[in-house]
Formats: sequence, structure tokens, C-alpha cells
Amino acid sequence: MVIVMDVGAREQDIVVVMNKLEKIGFQGHLIRGVNRIVIGAVGDRTAINSLNLEVLPGVEKVVPIMQPFKLVSREIRNDSTLIKVKNAVIGGEQPVVIAGPCAVESRDQLLTAARRAAAAGATILRGGTFKPRTSPYSFQGLQEEGLMLMSAAAKESGLATVTEVIDEWSLELALGYVDMVQVGARNMQNFKLLQAVGRCQKPVLLKRGLSATIEEWLMAAEYVVSEGNPSVVLCERGIRTFEKYTRNTLDLSAVPLVKGLTHLPVIVDPSHATGKRELVAPMSMAAIAAGADGLLVEMHPDPQRALCDGHQSLSPDELDTLMLRIANLKAAVSGVGA
Amino acid sequence: MVIVMDVGAREQDIVVVMNKLEKIGFQGHLIRGVNRIVIGAVGDRTAINSLNLEVLPGVEKVVPIMQPFKLVSREIRNDSTLIKVKNAVIGGEQPVVIAGPCAVESRDQLLTAARRAAAAGATILRGGTFKPRTSPYSFQGLQEEGLMLMSAAAKESGLATVTEVIDEWSLELALGYVDMVQVGARNMQNFKLLQAVGRCQKPVLLKRGLSATIEEWLMAAEYVVSEGNPSVVLCERGIRTFEKYTRNTLDLSAVPLVKGLTHLPVIVDPSHATGKRELVAPMSMAAIAAGADGLLVEMHPDPQRALCDGHQSLSPDELDTLMLRIANLKAAVSGVGA
Amino acid sequence: MVIVMDVGAREQDIVVVMNKLEKIGFQGHLIRGVNRIVIGAVGDRTAINSLNLEVLPGVEKVVPIMQPFKLVSREIRNDSTLIKVKNAVIGGEQPVVIAGPCAVESRDQLLTAARRAAAAGATILRGGTFKPRTSPYSFQGLQEEGLMLMSAAAKESGLATVTEVIDEWSLELALGYVDMVQVGARNMQNFKLLQAVGRCQKPVLLKRGLSATIEEWLMAAEYVVSEGNPSVVLCERGIRTFEKYTRNTLDLSAVPLVKGLTHLPVIVDPSHATGKRELVAPMSMAAIAAGADGLLVEMHPDPQRALCDGHQSLSPDELDTLMLRIANLKAAVSGVGA
Amino acid sequence: MVIVMDVGAREQDIVVVMNKLEKIGFQGHLIRGVNRIVIGAVGDRTAINSLNLEVLPGVEKVVPIMQPFKLVSREIRNDSTLIKVKNAVIGGEQPVVIAGPCAVESRDQLLTAARRAAAAGATILRGGTFKPRTSPYSFQGLQEEGLMLMSAAAKESGLATVTEVIDEWSLELALGYVDMVQVGARNMQNFKLLQAVGRCQKPVLLKRGLSATIEEWLMAAEYVVSEGNPSVVLCERGIRTFEKYTRNTLDLSAVPLVKGLTHLPVIVDPSHATGKRELVAPMSMAAIAAGADGLLVEMHPDPQRALCDGHQSLSPDELDTLMLRIANLKAAVSGVGA
Repeated sequence: MVIVMDVGAREQDIVVVMNKLEKIGFQGHLIRGVNRIVIGAVGDRTAINSLNLEVLPGVEKVVPIMQPFKLVSREIRNDSTLIKVKNAVIGGEQPVVIAGPCAVESRDQLLTAARRAAAAGATILRGGTFKPRTSPYSFQGLQEEGLMLMSAAAKESGLATVTEVIDEWSLELALGYVDMVQVGARNMQNFKLLQAVGRCQKPVLLKRGLSATIEEWLMAAEYVVSEGNPSVVLCERGIRTFEKYTRNTLDLSAVPLVKGLTHLPVIVDPSHATGKRELVAPMSMAAIAAGADGLLVEMHPDPQRALCDGHQSLSPDELDTLMLRIANLKAAVSGVGA
Repeated sequence: MVIVMDVGAREQDIVVVMNKLEKIGFQGHLIRGVNRIVIGAVGDRTAINSLNLEVLPGVEKVVPIMQPFKLVSREIRNDSTLIKVKNAVIGGEQPVVIAGPCAVESRDQLLTAARRAAAAGATILRGGTFKPRTSPYSFQGLQEEGLMLMSAAAKESGLATVTEVIDEWSLELALGYVDMVQVGARNMQNFKLLQAVGRCQKPVLLKRGLSATIEEWLMAAEYVVSEGNPSVVLCERGIRTFEKYTRNTLDLSAVPLVKGLTHLPVIVDPSHATGKRELVAPMSMAAIAAGADGLLVEMHPDPQRALCDGHQSLSPDELDTLMLRIANLKAAVSGVGA
Repeated sequence: MVIVMDVGAREQDIVVVMNKLEKIGFQGHLIRGVNRIVIGAVGDRTAINSLNLEVLPGVEKVVPIMQPFKLVSREIRNDSTLIKVKNAVIGGEQPVVIAGPCAVESRDQLLTAARRAAAAGATILRGGTFKPRTSPYSFQGLQEEGLMLMSAAAKESGLATVTEVIDEWSLELALGYVDMVQVGARNMQNFKLLQAVGRCQKPVLLKRGLSATIEEWLMAAEYVVSEGNPSVVLCERGIRTFEKYTRNTLDLSAVPLVKGLTHLPVIVDPSHATGKRELVAPMSMAAIAAGADGLLVEMHPDPQRALCDGHQSLSPDELDTLMLRIANLKAAVSGVGA
Repeated sequence: MVIVMDVGAREQDIVVVMNKLEKIGFQGHLIRGVNRIVIGAVGDRTAINSLNLEVLPGVEKVVPIMQPFKLVSREIRNDSTLIKVKNAVIGGEQPVVIAGPCAVESRDQLLTAARRAAAAGATILRGGTFKPRTSPYSFQGLQEEGLMLMSAAAKESGLATVTEVIDEWSLELALGYVDMVQVGARNMQNFKLLQAVGRCQKPVLLKRGLSATIEEWLMAAEYVVSEGNPSVVLCERGIRTFEKYTRNTLDLSAVPLVKGLTHLPVIVDPSHATGKRELVAPMSMAAIAAGADGLLVEMHPDPQRALCDGHQSLSPDELDTLMLRIANLKAAVSGVGA
């Protein structure tokens, strides 16, 4: 922390700040500039935050310097974390592709999706069973019936499975059927849910919130890990900006950036990020080229009949083509000189 | 909805769209321009959305025209809704001020806050008992003990009370103690929570999400109302933008705008919006001048010792001064020529 | 500046940074934390920036602490600057209202606008003569003919005048006819234009850029003042955000905030900020309540026939009503207890 | 355009709108829904805009449907435009790399940069000679002296050259020395400058503004092309968002999106977009994988001594490595199945 004092701060104001820091075991470093005095204090941000220094007389502002996350930081653990979901390993050499429909709609739809996803080379099946919808009048998901279909599809295809959970009740249910649980963008700061998935034993797919900073995203992961669950996969899915041609703005530079800050794997969801089917393939390629550990791609056996997100879903044939292109790309970028 | 066809759309593509519309009871209106054909269809947006028209061959894009909210719209009910919280009425002639600390910390702190809030002219006491914090290492609230203190403070001061709830469990608890429940900005699209507060009988204070559009905010209110609870008070509390001098950017034009769109009352939280104590008074004045139905203001008996948000909390004396200024302002703007 | 060293920074890396700072006359203050070393250096930000410290081995990041603006800062000059434009004084007790059409269209239109603006109590007439339009196919302004009409309107009405300039040529022309020149939002970082208006002797109305931070806005003012022209009036006109219901998001908290940082006056343009006529009056009221030194309001004798921005222009009668309401409001907020 | 009428619009209001449309040669299409009447009109957006329909009684809003750009649109010209800059061709099979320092500083610096850029495989040399700086106290560029050095570097290395121009004067000067002129992000809506480069005969590199929508960016290109200069290369360089870990947010999905909308080539500037040297290589890879026609990369012979942007400049060796990786990547993505 750096505490910047007002131009007119008095000596006694400085003493008060220094004493407060000392009381919680910090040493304040006084720096007297020409116009201004600032006090440096290096240490745990949460502890210093609790001092409420901004409120003290003579204090102009408090500028945080250190990152607030710890357990998920590369400073704690430099080696990249590998996360096993059934037979898939996320964070290793090969990018992992999670594919499947926005929503589980029927046995036929899901089994076809699973078969085609597996044939294309995906290793995890996605399928929404509890749908958080912006309109109360939209389809809300098949719930437990959907989970049973996920389980059946997993058996038949050999794929691992992931579904979004939206509260403790849906989490309890989901844990009985799927291999990985997803916390959606709108729940990234639903701290009760983060704590609940932190207490479970299955890997968590944590989507970045629509307007979450990278720091807030990593703090959400810290919530999960601090409850005892070390298996968090981060998923960049676009942020909200002024640009409206795409559904969101895919922040792809977050991939190499976050991989530098945390040991957790980072994947990319080009379907929700762009909201346009024709952008899914180029942004998938870009994500892998930027170093993403995998992709989360919406694929529907018949996008025109999808109950949700049909406009951003690939068809099975499109997924086949994309998987081939990604394999070529990955081979090239992993080769000599990469 | 307006369905814009591709430049190269074929007649059969148009027929498919027209037929799809017809099947759900809509009449498509074909408009042939020089370069382009567009199809207009007026009616329920959710129904048309379910058609997935974007996915059809020859369709370039689908542009929504109508607002998706219904029950909360002024089109359904033109008269402004008045919401009674104990003795306070929100939405009427007089602005209602909700004041109190960020977090309930102790009996002494809360009773002092309540006494001073009541003396200043506030009619509802706020106090956080379940705190959603961005860091898992921060103070998480006194929970039921805090609720009991809220109840005690209400008895002593005569104030109504409001506290934030974060899931069904905290909602259940809170309903036993307080007069109004708050859904926080980070939970504005926690649809399970919206449904739960929609099934309760107490008024709901619904904060706008950090990056929620006005449409999404009203859809969140629609969730609550559609479950049977008509008593929703909207609260603008700043949105996330590129500007970092303030904690958020207070979108004050949302006040007259939203009051034109919905019959529900709208209040403003200048404390969270700005994150700076010195901006609370000017933005409170501005909010009332813009037509807000009330304010939600953080006030702490001793801001320097507050466990959270001390830097944005008014002292009791500052609240006294603000209440006088607001009374003057309101008298002036309600007078002749207003 | 605070220079944060990498976790693995070596002693020699620290020495290099300290030496670099010393060479330009700064003393580096070394702060050794548990995990990390940071170096504090207080002083001129531009000088330190030129050192490129981020590039040095062992340096993680450089965090600026001080504000980069000087001449416009309250630290240099605490008293508020009053700016005289003909008979109007901006920055004093009474808010100044600048009113008039988006574009000068004809003698009749402008003289009517001037007459009605003066009758309502405005003291400065606005009128666009060089129009920066986003489409090359839109009306680009009457140019010198428009300036002559501005001059005629000033003579007849007694109002001062302001028009937007878009390059050195239009500035030269405008200086012969009007009392104040405006730098528009899209040119706020057109540094050549800032320097040019900085060399002229007339007051400058400097609009905030669509996505300019407060710091950048004040740096743009610094450009003008550093060239020798001390008469800059800042104008908040809305920033670009994700919200699309309004044309821009009026950042009204910028008013009290900026007035705390600079001695220059700050006014508000509710017309461009909201883009909706029905929001102009409430946001004008809010601006004055927040402490703005004045307003810039679009008014057209016949908004339905305006060549531009008719949808956000007040009619003369609406301006009359607004001016009365503002007078009431100002009297109330300036009174006892204000 | 779709004109949405108020719920309470009267028949005479509708007649007025229909008549206005008819007068400018449009046929209005009346669509009567259950609650609402809307009027569709397909045609030139500028013409309809000039009608000011929003101001008419009974009109709630006017929703644009068509894109406002014409000459740069793929609807006018489906074939991709190839732009020749000396020996480099932008828009063809091979991505073009433009490399060089932020600012031209000295003969030695620039010639070394040019030599290394050419050796690495770049074909165009960038170098700033007129620097638009946010602080009036920062280095403003060598101006004509810098242009002469660019010319010398071009001769020696065989590279083409590009420099940023900031007004008509610098444009005049630059045209005598360089092969391509750049319009910077802060000048993207400096319409006078757009018109001036539109009247010159050399290719224009048009950067996207910090907060420019894709539509505004293409309209800026339309300005240039409508003045007679068809050779515009678009450059995505990051947009301003709430995220502050990177200097800007690189909007890479804009690449395939814009390439679908316009026949002009699109390149990417990962240096300014991210502001961090370690992100330049991954985002360069991602840009090419997403289909960009080239890159604009800052490279300095000695980044630690750069007068500006050293923290985001590659060293010559880093550029060598990047060029090899890009060649591998491009070979892989252009191959079978791409």
C-alpha cells in the first residue's frame, strides 16, 4: 500500500498513520517529496484495508500495490496446475475441448451431441440443465432429468461431463451426475455459491463475470481454493464493453496475462464471447494461438432447432472442421521456435 | 422484431421465415427495399426469440424493437406504485432516506446509528448482516446476531429496517427480523434469489448490477414481480466504466429514464456509486433534483472505526446537514414552476 | 511513483533502479517487505516516466501516485478561476447558461434562437458553424456564413457567443467573430488544436472526450494553459459506456470531483449527454444541484425542423420553464444550510 | 429504419410520419401489432435521419437497421482490396509485418531498427515523427528531421515506410518522405484530417479510436474513401474498457467481423493494445490465427533506452523469434482443412 498524504497534512496526521500501521505489525516507510509526503507499507492487503486509512485526517488516498490473491498466485506455486476431469487433463500440452449444447433438451439431442463431440475429438461434454435466463419467461432447463441424460451420454460416449450450477440445491444434485461443475458469469461473485463449490470434491469451471476485472476473477478462484478445492479451471468468455456488434468483447489478452499471474489453467469460450457462429472458428484458433489450455464450444446437432443460443452454436460438421484446424495449429505453434 | 435478410437471400428463405412466424401466431410484414428485404413482426419478444431466426439461411440479423419487460412497465400500469415499508412510503411526494452502516458491528454501534438516523429524519435503517465480500479473507457479517440487533434498533428508534440477503437461507432468516430485503448489485442476475424474494411478502430493494443495462435491471424486477411480489424498489448505485477516479460511475440519467419506463419507485445510493465521502452530499442533492424517490446513504457513528466502507460513510453530523439541504432543495423543486 | 520489483529481483537490479532515479535528481526509498521489494520516489511524473523503468530487469511494474497535471491543479492555485465571456462570468456564484441550436442554419433561425435564449436568461449563445459529423454525407455547417450570423445575433441580442472549431483554419476564422471557442469531445486529444487554442486570447470551452478519463481531460486543459491561455471552461458531456438507452452516460459525479482537483470552472451539457429531450430538464437540475458552474443546452426555435440534434433540443418555451426551475433550485441550495 | 410509435399515438401522427417518408421518396410500411404500431422504411439512413422523426408527436423511437457505410462495404465490392505499399501488398495471402520504434530518435537508432526489421522479414518500417502525447511536457517528435531519417532508412533497407500525421501541415511534410501515412487512434474522428488524407494519393493506415464502435471506424474509412483515396488499411489497436491490467483491451473478434463487413484489409497492433512486451508475441500469434492481414509491432534496438513505449517494444531478437513463429503458424493455418 502507498498512503498519499494531503498537501496540507500535519506531522500529527503522519504519526497517526504510522502508529496504525505499526499496531498491525507493519513498518511504514516515510517518503518526503517536494510537495507531498507518502508512506509505503508492504504486506497483506486485507490487513491494511481493515485500517480504513482513507478516513483519517490528512490522508488523500490509499493506493494498493500488491495483488490481493494468494493461493491461486504463481508466487505461491510456480508450476502449472493440471486438472483431471475423468480422462481429460486440463493445463497440459494438449488443449482440451469441451463441446455440447447450450441446454440439454432431449435424450436424442444430447446423445447425438455427445457422439459427435467425441468423434470430433472433444473430451468433455457440456450441457445446461439449470439455465439462468435473463427473462423469467424463457426455458429454465430440464434440471434433474437433464442431469440423468448427461450421465447416460457420458456412459455411452466415454466423455467427461460438465454442467452449470446456480445454487446449493442444484450443486447437490449435479454432484451425483457430472464430473465437473460450472459457475457461470452472472454468478462469479455469488460468494455463497463459490464457497459451496469450494467445499465439493469435483473440479470447477469458473467463468469470468461480464464486468469482472482480472483481479476480481482471480479473487473468485481464491474463494473456491481457500475452501479446500484446488481444482479450478478459469474460463474467459468475453466482457461487456460499449461495442455491440458482438455479444461481448472477447478479452483474449487475458489468456497469456492470467497464465502469468496464476498456476491455474485458462480456457476460452468463443461462443458466448462473440454470440455469432461465424466468429467461433476464428476466435477458437486465436485462443489456442494465444496459449489457452482449451476451449468451451457450443455445438448442437441441429442449431436451427436449438432451444437456446442456436445462433452461436456450431453444427457437428463445423466442429469436425474446427478440431482439425486446431490440431494443425497446435502442432505448428508447439514446434521448433515456438 | 425486425428480421433483416441477407443481400443474397432467396425467395424460399423468406417463405421459411414467414411460415415460422405464422406458426406462433404472428403476421410477418414484408418490406422490400432497394438492396434488401426486411420482415417486421410485432409481438411478444420471448416467443419470437424462441424461433432462433438468426440461424436460418438468408437471415442476416434480428433486431429487437419492443421492450422485453411487461409487468413492471408503465404500459401495463401507468400510475406510480407506492411501496410501504412500516411507516415509510416510497414513491410518493416526499423522498425517503434509508441510512445506516455498511455492516452491523455491535449493539452500541447500531443503536447509535439508528438513533442518529431517526433524529436526522431518515425513516429506514440499513445495516449489512450477510456481507458479500470480494475477498474470502474479509469480514463476512454478524449474520443472525446482526439481524437481532436490527430488530432491537427498529424497536428503539421506530425506524423500518432493510438488510441484504444473499441466498435462500439468509432470506429465510432475514424475513423474521427486518421489514425489507435487499438484493445486492452482484446478485442482480442471481435468478434463484430473485425468484425466492419474489415468493416472499416483504418489499424488495433491488440494486442495479455493476454492468447491468437498464433493460436487464427491469427484467430482474420482472422476475420478482412475476413470482407474485409487486413491491420492488429499484436502486441505482453506479455502473462500471473506464473511469477510475470514482468507485463506479453514478448513472443519474437512469433515474428520470427508468421512471418513464416503469411504475416502480427508483432511489439512488451515492455512497457505493462514488466510493468517496466528499461526493455523497453533492450526488444526493443531484439525485433528488433529478427526481429520485429517495436515497440509500451509508452513515456510521464513527467512520474511522468502521469495519467496512468507512471512506464512503457520512458521520451522523454530516447526515444532519445533508437532510436539511435536501429538505430545502425538495421544497424548491416541488414549488411553482417545478 | 512506486516501482514494484519482481519476487526474484536481484540486488543489482535494485541498484540499477536507484541509480537511474538518482541521476535525474530523485531519491529512491527502498521498502523491503516480506515477499517483495518496492521503491518509492516522489516527484515529477514526466521525468520519471522518461526513465522507462518498466523495461529494466527485475522490475514488475511502475505505479503512478501523483497527478500529472500541474497548472490547472488546485495545488498550484487554490482560488477558483473566474472566466469572463463578454458580460457573462463563469465560475462565480450564479450558474451561466449557454443555449442555442446545434447548427446555425439561417439568419431567421439564429436570430430567433438568440432572442429567445436572451429572454429566458441565458447569457451566451451557442451555434455550430463547423460541424464534425460521423458521416461524410451529413450537413457540415455554414462555416464563415454561419460565423457572420453569430456575430449579427450577438449584436442584436447582447449575448456572448461560442462556436466549435475543428482545426487551425476554422479557429482563425472563428476568432474574428465569436467570444469563445469550443473544442469538441472528438478533438479533446487533438493536441495540435489544443496548442492552437492555447495560443489565442479568447476563452476556451473544452469538452470531455467520449472515453477520456478525468486525468486525460485535465491534461488536455493543461495543454491549453501551458501555451499561455488561462481561460479554460471544462464541460462534462457524457462518456461512452455499455448502456445504450441514453446516447452517452452523463458522469455527474465528475462535477464535484473535478472542482476539487482544479481551479477551472466546470459546466454540463445535458443535451449531448443524454440525447433525449425529456431528460434535459431533470439532468440540468441535477447538474446545478451537484455544483456545476453552468449548462450548455441545445435549444432550437423549431426542433422538428432542426438540421441536427432536433431530438435532443429544447423548444424556446421549454427553455423558459427550465430557467425558472433552475433559479428556484439555485436559490434553495445557496441558502442557509447549503 | 423502424419507427416505433407511442402506445397512445393517434392516426394523424401516423399520417405525418408516412407523409414525411414519402416526400423523400420512401415508402413507409405500416405494421399494426397488438399494443403498438411500427413503421418500416428501408433505404438510405442519412436521408431518413435528416427527417428528425424522433421529434414528431406520437413517435417513441427510431431504430436504425441498415449499416451507414457504403463505399467500404462488401455489399458494394465483394472482392478484398489489395493495397500496395512499395513492395509490400496488404490484404493478400501473406501477412505483412510493419515494425519499428515508437519514435524516431536518431539516425543510428532508426537505421539499426530498419536493418533488423528487414532482416527479420518485416516489409514496412514504422517510426513516429510527429508524436501526439497526452502530456504537453513529453517528447513531441523530431518532425521533419525524423522524416528525413525515415527516408534514409528506407533507402538503405529497402523497406517501405509509414509515419503518423496529426494535421494538414504534418501530412504535407510527410507525403514528401514516406510511403504510407497513419491516422492515429486519437484522431480517428478528426474529420478534417480524414478528408485531407482522403485527398492524397498514398495509402492510409487508419487506427481504430479508443472508444470507437466498429461502425464509427468504418465510417471514418468511408470519409477517406469518399474523398477519393481507396487505399485504407484498418488497424485494430485495442479499445478502452474497465479492465486496467492491460493498457487497452485488444478486440480481436473485430478482425473476422470487420473482414466480413468491408473489403479493406485489417491489421492488428498488439503493442499499443496490450502495453506489455510479454503479451506482444502471444497476441501477434492470435491475431494471425484470427485472420488478420498483418501486424504493426513496436521494435526498438534498445528498448531500455527508448524515448517512448519502451515497456511495450520488442527487441530485434524478439522480433526475429516472433517472425519465425508467425511463419510456422501461417503455414499451418493456410494448409489443408484451414
